[in-house]
Order: sequence, then C-alpha cells, then structure tokens
Amino acid sequence: MKVERKKWSEEFSEWYNELIETAGIQDKRYPVKGMNIWLPYGLKIMRNIERFIHAEMERTGHGEVLFPALIPETEFQKEAEHIAGFEGEVFWVTHAGHDPLDIKLILRPTSETAMYSMFALWIRSHADLPFKIYQIVNTYRYETKHTRPLIRVREISRFFEAHTAHDSFEDAERQIKEDLEIFNNLAKFLAIPYIVSKRPEWDKFPGAYYSLGAEVMMPDGRTLQIGTMHNYRQNFAKAYEILYETEDGNHEYVHQTTFGMSERLLAAVIAIHGDDRGMVLPPTIAPIQVVIVPIPKKDAEADVFAYAREIADELKAAGIRVHVDERDIRPGRKFYDWELKGVPLRIEVGPRDVEGRKAVLARRDTLMKETVEREGLVEVIRKTLDEIHANLYTRAEEFLRSHIKRVDTIEEAKAVFEDRRGVVEIPWCGEEECGLKMEEELDAKMLGTPYPEEKAKEGIEGKKCPICGRGAKFIARFARTY
Amino acid sequence: MKVERKKWSEEFSEWYNELIETAGIQDKRYPVKGMNIWLPYGLKIMRNIERFIHAEMERTGHGEVLFPALIPETEFQKEAEHIAGFEGEVFWVTHAGHDPLDIKLILRPTSETAMYSMFALWIRSHADLPFKIYQIVNTYRYETKHTRPLIRVREISRFFEAHTAHDSFEDAERQIKEDLEIFNNLAKFLAIPYIVSKRPEWDKFPGAYYSLGAEVMMPDGRTLQIGTMHNYRQNFAKAYEILYETEDGNHEYVHQTTFGMSERLLAAVIAIHGDDRGMVLPPTIAPIQVVIVPIPKKDAEADVFAYAREIADELKAAGIRVHVDERDIRPGRKFYDWELKGVPLRIEVGPRDVEGRKAVLARRDTLMKETVEREGLVEVIRKTLDEIHANLYTRAEEFLRSHIKRVDTIEEAKAVFEDRRGVVEIPWCGEEECGLKMEEELDAKMLGTPYPEEKAKEGIEGKKCPICGRGAKFIARFARTY
Repeated sequence: MKVERKKWSEEFSEWYNELIETAGIQDKRYPVKGMNIWLPYGLKIMRNIERFIHAEMERTGHGEVLFPALIPETEFQKEAEHIAGFEGEVFWVTHAGHDPLDIKLILRPTSETAMYSMFALWIRSHADLPFKIYQIVNTYRYETKHTRPLIRVREISRFFEAHTAHDSFEDAERQIKEDLEIFNNLAKFLAIPYIVSKRPEWDKFPGAYYSLGAEVMMPDGRTLQIGTMHNYRQNFAKAYEILYETEDGNHEYVHQTTFGMSERLLAAVIAIHGDDRGMVLPPTIAPIQVVIVPIPKKDAEADVFAYAREIADELKAAGIRVHVDERDIRPGRKFYDWELKGVPLRIEVGPRDVEGRKAVLARRDTLMKETVEREGLVEVIRKTLDEIHANLYTRAEEFLRSHIKRVDTIEEAKAVFEDRRGVVEIPWCGEEECGLKMEEELDAKMLGTPYPEEKAKEGIEGKKCPICGRGAKFIARFARTY
Repeated sequence: MKVERKKWSEEFSEWYNELIETAGIQDKRYPVKGMNIWLPYGLKIMRNIERFIHAEMERTGHGEVLFPALIPETEFQKEAEHIAGFEGEVFWVTHAGHDPLDIKLILRPTSETAMYSMFALWIRSHADLPFKIYQIVNTYRYETKHTRPLIRVREISRFFEAHTAHDSFEDAERQIKEDLEIFNNLAKFLAIPYIVSKRPEWDKFPGAYYSLGAEVMMPDGRTLQIGTMHNYRQNFAKAYEILYETEDGNHEYVHQTTFGMSERLLAAVIAIHGDDRGMVLPPTIAPIQVVIVPIPKKDAEADVFAYAREIADELKAAGIRVHVDERDIRPGRKFYDWELKGVPLRIEVGPRDVEGRKAVLARRDTLMKETVEREGLVEVIRKTLDEIHANLYTRAEEFLRSHIKRVDTIEEAKAVFEDRRGVVEIPWCGEEECGLKMEEELDAKMLGTPYPEEKAKEGIEGKKCPICGRGAKFIARFARTY
C-alpha cells in the first residue's frame, strides 16, 4: 500500500475544509460567519496540546490567570499604535439589557489593554520581577478576509497568550529565548518543523519593538504563522504607567514581552501530517493511540473479542490510550473511520491470530502492515508509536527543507512561486522601500529575516539587493501566507 | 488553640470579600463592574474542581464541546419564555470595526439558543439518542443587583452547562437522576453538604417544564444556589425543530434536560469551610496539600532544610502535593500565609525533629498540633488528610442541619429569620398565591419543595397552609438567598 497525497497537495484547501468536519474536529454550520463549534473529538486533541502547554508554563514559572473578555473603550485607547492596529477589527458591546452602556466595551482581540493597568497595580518593586503570567481564552477579530476553520476565524477560541514584565531589556531578551525553547519543545511534541523570522518593521505587532514569527509549511506551499514572540521594550509600560522600584530606590518602567499561539497549532498538525485518507495524528496528542479491530469469523466471535479485550487491557495498564471497536459493522468501514480520524496505530486480530498468539499492526503514517507476536506486544507498540512520531517529523522536515529556496534575483523568486511555492530567501539591503517593492513584485509577504540574528546574514557576502543593487545586509524570506 | 469563627459568621460579607483577594483567588479591581480577574492560586483550585467535573462527564458519556460565545439575535428570539427571562440582562454586540452589524449578536447568558439549532442538525434518529454534551465557558449577565466575586457577577467565567436530548420523558428523568448523582459525587469531593428543592412554578428557569436547585448554607444563614437541573420536556425542541426518527419511522420531538454549575462551587467551598484565619481547603482540591515549614536554629540550618526536602521528596513520590517554604522570613509569617490560603496540613521541622526523626503536624481544620514519627510519615499524612476531609464534611453537615427548621406558622418562621436564619420549612397548600404571600411576609424566597418528590410530603399529615388555612399538600422551603 502506498501513501497517497494527491488531493492533500493539489486540492489542499478543499481537502482541509472537508476533513475538519468529517474527522469530527469542528462544525462550521454555526450561524455566525467565522465562528465554529468544537466537536468532542477535535477538542480532545486540542486539550492534549493545551495540557503540554500548561506543563511547560508551570515548568517555566508562569502563573495561569483569566481576565474578563470585555475591555473598556477607555483602557483600549491608551496605546496609540495598538489601537491603530486593532480598531478596525474589534467587536463593540454597546448595550446591556435595554440600555446603552456609559462606557462601551470591546471584545478582546488580545489582552494587552485588559492586563496592563493591572500590571501597574501588581508590580511594585524589583522583587516582583520577572513577572510571568499566561491564559488560554477566547478572543475576537472582525476578519474581513476569507475565513477558514482554526486558521482565520472571528472567534479564536483557544488563544494562548503569555505576558511578562522584566527589570531590563536583557532580561526581556532572556524571556524571548525561553519562549523559543518552549515553542521548540511544543513543536517537537507535535512533530512539526518550523522556521523563525524576525518580522520587518512594517509588519510588527502593533506596539511592539520587534516581533518574531514562527511559520510552518502547508501542503500547498503557503506558510502558516503558528507562534509569535514580541519584545515591547517599555512601550506599553509608558502608556499604562507600569513602574517598579529599583534596588537603589528609583522608579523605572518595566520591559515587557508576549508570546502568542492558538488553535492554529492543531491546524498545522492536521495539514502537515495528513494524507488523502484523512488525518495522521502524532501519538503524543491522539485521543486514541491504538485502535483494535476484531476480525471475527463465524463461530469464533467470542474468542476474537476476548483476545482483543485482553490486549486492550494490557495496553491500558501500560498507559497507552486504546480503544476496541466493537461496532456491528464491517472491518473495512472501521478501518476507513479510524484512518480518517488519524489514529496512529491499528491492531487487527482474527481467529488465526488468536490461535497463533499473534496480532497484525497497521501503521497510519506508512500504511504498512506487519504481523507480530502477542508476547512482548506492549514493547513493540511503544517502539512503533515512537517510530511513527519520528517518521512524521522527518517527513515534514524534508517537506519544509525542500520548500525553502535561496535565490539571487526576482525572476528566480517568481519562478519558485510559479512552481511549488514555499519560502524564498533573497538578499536584501534592509530598506523598507526595497522590501515592499519585493513584496509587490512577488505578490508575497516578507516573513522577515532569519532568526536568531546571526542566521540573517549567512551567505550574503558579495550578494546584492535585487531591487536597488546595493550590497545586501540581510537575507529576507518571502512566502504566500495563510 | 481554638478555631475562631466570629468574623466568619458575624461579618461574613466583609470576611468573604476580603479573603477573595488576600488569599489570592481573584482581583476585583478590574475596571468593569462585576467582572473579576482570576489569580493563579484561585484558578489552580478551580481547575482541580473542573478536573473532577471533566472526569465525571467522561464517565457518564458526555462529549465536551465549545460553542461560540456570540449568539445571533434571530436564534436568541426563538423561544418566547426564554427571551422574556433573559432579554433584560443580555449584553449586545452591535458593531464590528467601524460598521453596524446586520444581525446583532448577544453574549451568551446560557447556551440553549446557541446550541439547539445545531441539535436539529445533529440529531436524526433514535440511534443518536440519548445525546449528551457539555462545556465550561464564559457567560454574561447584566446583573443589576449588588455584585460579589464568584457569586453574582456579570461575567461568569467558569460556567458549566450540560445539555442532553432523549427519546422520551422517562429517559430525560433518568438523566436528571444521573445529574443528581454526579452532583452528589462532586459535593462529596468538595465536602459540601447541600439540599435539593424543586423550584415553584414562578421561579423555574425560563423555558423549563420544571427546575431543581441545589443549595448550600452560607455562614450568615443565607443559602447559595450552586447547581441546577432542568427538564425542558419538548419545549425547546418545538421552538428549534429538534426531531428524531423513531424505530417505526415516525418523527417526534426530543425531550431535553440541562445541568448547570459555575464558580459558585468555589465560593461555597471558601465560605463553608473557612474560619477567621482564612480559607480551609479540602485536600482533594488544595493546590498544596501539605506545606513544610523548616524551623532552623542557628548552626543547624542545613540539616533542617535537608530533612524538610527529604520529607517533601517522599511525599511527592507518594502523589501528595507538597511544598517546602524556604523563604527567608520568620516561621510565624509563613504559618499566617498558608493558613490564609487554606493549606490543609502543615509540617513543622526543627533541629530536635531532625535528631529524633520526628515531625510536627498542624491541621488547618482543627488547628491541633501533634508530633509524629518520621518512620511511616506518608501513611500518617494520608490518613490525616482523609480525616480532615471527613471532618470538614461533618462540621458543615451539622451547620446545615442546625440551620433547617420546620415550623407551622408565619410567626415561627419570622422568628427564625430574625434569629439565626437558615432554611425554614412550612406546610403549604400548593397555591401560587399563598406561596407568594409567604415570600412577602417572610421577606424570603421560596426555594421550592424538597426533592425527590416523596420528601416533599413528609410529615404534612394534618398540617395546614398558614396563609389560607387549607390542608397542606407540600412542605415549602424558604430562605434568604444569595
């Protein structure tokens, strides 16, 4: 059997939209555009992702908080760049009951303006720093672009945001490093390779000093941003009067950072690992890691089911998430369902397996089947699940690498976008004018320069900016994006 | 040492409001009335409560979903009684970006009207029934009454709602029984005794056929509703066209129920178990079950800290949530902090304990101290935590029982409300007119009649309704409520 990825790559958009519903992730028929309903199976996967995030936040000393979803207009308007960036896309609550509100409220599009007047109350002295909190909440953006489940929505229902305050720029930089480390652990957990770019000035988060974005490669060669880290320096601290007393009794503005993610993480997992049969879930987050399908023959039903349950009990005791599909339908239909839902490993057991104390393992990632001994099955399954995870990562890594291309000219770049798309790296003088010109010529977005900074200059000796012809100072990455 | 509960009972309102902030549960200074910020410690406790709820939902076959928080005006207006009950207290989203919305949206006050048009799509045949889902989400009510954290708020941020659909009234009744069983398990887990009443007709949930409410007794003798179960019969099914195909091919409306709870569960735990020193948490939900306070003498610091950590490691390995307070402050200050935060058990270790291989246990519930052997400490602690839990329940149970009084006349009832308050049970003819009259005379709310139904008639033989003098048909419960 061969892994087919024709529909996956050639009709990605339809493949994805359909799968979200058929695999039980979300229902898109809710009667408000861009707002979808999480279904139990999809939410279970997302909860497994969140559990990992909670553990990483705990490990790194972030306290979990929950802020109200409504922000008074007066708070929202304290930081000029931030308002400018968001005011066109916020939902306004103007009435309550039968009366207009004295002060209008917005539904948070992100929580800087909700949190930072509280930071000013909470943070008093250097002993309170670093101050690190996070929350996973619903946020709202009035998207005018085409919406797509988990990717571009008007209600981001699993919005993760960590907010920190520090006594120096250096400590804020250390925080950004920690965010990148957390992000890297998470990406490994999800088996999704990614690249990090420092956004160009014109595409920073509204109010940020600088912004980093982490992108993955989607099957159609477009990139998806799934994580951002921003260093705000003292910009918001000044707008919200967040001061701390230093050891020698002075008062200084704090330095701040944020780290953001969302249900796009799940979108990336679905898109990157899938194939024409449906989802392929990494075992780390699969609600069911192993499904056992009994294949009884007449007169041997009881034995086969008993054997299936015996195996299930053993796997369960070993901490493996297992399910026996005892539905009264044909095995082929069961295979179809669980392949669609991305269960990483299937065990088939029939009368001959019962007799010979064997089992058939079918891997979802490779679609390969193998007969193994009943004896020592738990160990074989553990090893196989690890192999599946590693294989998913490797396959995705190859796909990402093969979709990053370095070129010297606009013509070469255009050719890439006409062919397989992906990320194009071009030497750049660093001037906004040339950057914008390249965006226009390529009909692509500049993701930014490779990060960490030293990577942004690798191999640019002697290269020229293809727009102005001056010497290149950076590598700039371009992509068609989601 | 004696457990002081003077402030707790005599100035409960101030005691509670202050504790919510000093114990690190919520910050009330958020600049929107009735919307508060969950702080890390409070949220950890709430998450432990939610974890239990999730497990019970899983056990009973409810799927977890997440619906959008915004409901189109058009959906909201489909069930007449429901709108009438809520329209005075919903928040309206009227604009997005710079434009007015074509169809105004409300922030969900509860999710019937968000969910039930989807039920009509999801439920097709008898094979889909019973259909059971739940979510824990933020909901919004424009409360005009005095707000109070966790109890009466405009953003209920941890609103639990289970919604089910059934093929018959009987199966819906079975669901209500299951809800009561789940609720009972949860109450045991939280060590909070409660009573269940069937609400009078005039106080049913808007759109319900009947409503049950579960109340706890607060320190000031007022009751707090912490759980509700509603049987909707086919009322919403008719408004939202939720039909299923029966086995013989007919189409019938489903029967529906809901089950609701919120962060009031935590309010109840804080209020019921606390004392003048602060919170007393049941070990089941305490983020820290055991705090170890080293009490070093000069020159013996290292030994004492090493001993404390050794004990902590052993407890941790045994699955007990333990924390060693190594802060550089006086032990008395540490005792104060952890008593305020309700840690059920404190271990004090000093040089003599190190030497004699002993430890001092201080119980938060009784404030009693006891010296125990280092040998077998884990077992002693496990047992003590269980005893604390049992003692909290027993103490609360006695308090509840002593605050329920059965009387025959309005005068007796008034005397109860003038004295210690609590729940007053009065014979009632069952007529709305007499019930409302009693509410007025007593300046109290009728909670309803004891549930299950057979309890509603216990001991009413020969009793008369004190308003009309006719023979009593039920016992009616009255209370001042939160």
